[in-house]
Amino acid sequence: MPKINSYVDISTIDKEAKRDFIDRHSPFVIVEDTPVKGQKLRVKVRVGQEYCHPDDFDHYIAWVQLWDGDTFLAQANFVPGVQGNQCSQAEVDFYIVPTKKKLKLQAMSYCTKHGLWQGPEVELEVQEAEAGVGA
Amino acid sequence: MPKINSYVDISTIDKEAKRDFIDRHSPFVIVEDTPVKGQKLRVKVRVGQEYCHPDDFDHYIAWVQLWDGDTFLAQANFVPGVQGNQCSQAEVDFYIVPTKKKLKLQAMSYCTKHGLWQGPEVELEVQEAEAGVGA
Amino acid sequence: MPKINSYVDISTIDKEAKRDFIDRHSPFVIVEDTPVKGQKLRVKVRVGQEYCHPDDFDHYIAWVQLWDGDTFLAQANFVPGVQGNQCSQAEVDFYIVPTKKKLKLQAMSYCTKHGLWQGPEVELEVQEAEAGVGA
Amino acid sequence: MPKINSYVDISTIDKEAKRDFIDRHSPFVIVEDTPVKGQKLRVKVRVGQEYCHPDDFDHYIAWVQLWDGDTFLAQANFVPGVQGNQCSQAEVDFYIVPTKKKLKLQAMSYCTKHGLWQGPEVELEVQEAEAGVGA
Repeated sequence: MPKINSYVDISTIDKEAKRDFIDRHSPFVIVEDTPVKGQKLRVKVRVGQEYCHPDDFDHYIAWVQLWDGDTFLAQANFVPGVQGNQCSQAEVDFYIVPTKKKLKLQAMSYCTKHGLWQGPEVELEVQEAEAGVGA
Repeated sequence: MPKINSYVDISTIDKEAKRDFIDRHSPFVIVEDTPVKGQKLRVKVRVGQEYCHPDDFDHYIAWVQLWDGDTFLAQANFVPGVQGNQCSQAEVDFYIVPTKKKLKLQAMSYCTKHGLWQGPEVELEVQEAEAGVGA
Repeated sequence: MPKINSYVDISTIDKEAKRDFIDRHSPFVIVEDTPVKGQKLRVKVRVGQEYCHPDDFDHYIAWVQLWDGDTFLAQANFVPGVQGNQCSQAEVDFYIVPTKKKLKLQAMSYCTKHGLWQGPEVELEVQEAEAGVGA
Repeated sequence: MPKINSYVDISTIDKEAKRDFIDRHSPFVIVEDTPVKGQKLRVKVRVGQEYCHPDDFDHYIAWVQLWDGDTFLAQANFVPGVQGNQCSQAEVDFYIVPTKKKLKLQAMSYCTKHGLWQGPEVELEVQEAEAGVGA
């Protein structure tokens, strides 16, 4: 396996350059709504939280993947330039329909210069749909 | 080239089954915000507007692509089951940074039973960023 | 749909630059063995037959797709540099198992500067497996 | 990160079912030719060496990736049915042009039922091209 770089809490890191390096490569999973069984849920994957990443031809985020535990859900592939060749945060919202009681969402991303990264796992309880409600 | 099925305005079609068939396979581009040069823009691709598509193992939306004119921007790949194996609308939000004066956005999608589809083209003017504003 | 550039027989074209342009972008399907029902078959997709294509960061073949008629079979995604950043022919061999009497193989490829291309369709009869033989 | 299942030498394993399970999921890198700097090299990725894997709608190899050390080279995506829905070995040949002295090739593959697998790393010396020879 290629080396998997992992997100670490950057508030524990002194050097600004290192905080920037870690943050701008880490694919964060962001879920704003409450997951409900059988109902569509938006799951954002964004590479970087406080810092931005280049979108240069020889240095860009080539793809991100979304996983639920050991289950692969979806992948987005990019070409350089989609972010206007400016410093930005690669971002994509996937939509999934939960069917189990728990979600363990995690994203992977690949930078063409700095390799493979995993973001923090986000564990979420899935609510039962109320009677008469649902997708 | 494989046959490219094209969206046609379903309000012009009499047969309900045909309206359903066309709508549930067509990848629509939906942009809610005003495109501004150099600023990130959310571009939703949703397969189906009024009807839903199966997410069965032998019948699902395998991928969608987003294009700006003849330029490929991004692709999302799915596996069956991401929509909980229920009738749903495959959906993904891409984020792009416009750099030209116009966007001509269009999406393609592939159904493992009913082939390749293109949605309607969405042409958008891109505003200049105001002085002092921008990404 | 983005414009689909199609291969045309370059022996009919006078200008060398145009022959080069067409050939180096066209994804050719090459099958050396006889297709037999139920037996694995190698299907090569090669972008270019007589000319080579750049593998530059801002100008490369980003992906190729293999189709059988209207049925999508497989896609390969590349990042710039896989061909050593030299003029080369993007190439990938897929392996499929035919189940019908005919194959109508065709490839699509995408150049990040010159868009979407389709190669010539290759129609092949599929032999029945001999008794006692097969996969 | 999803769990990464790793190939282990199956000759050390007693139970036939376990040997089969491990072998049929492991993506092997196979290189027949001598790598030469600046010359195209065929790199086969085959999932399984002695056993075959189902190609069922709800159980198939969805994608394989090829890596050189920490550098991603290429990915192939499949839909179920490409192997004729029979027990087979998912397979793809990528073509790369080495530019450094060493290759550390390794493949990843994803089974829609049994998750992410990595095959054994293949380390290869890259020869200098002889004078007057080359791609």
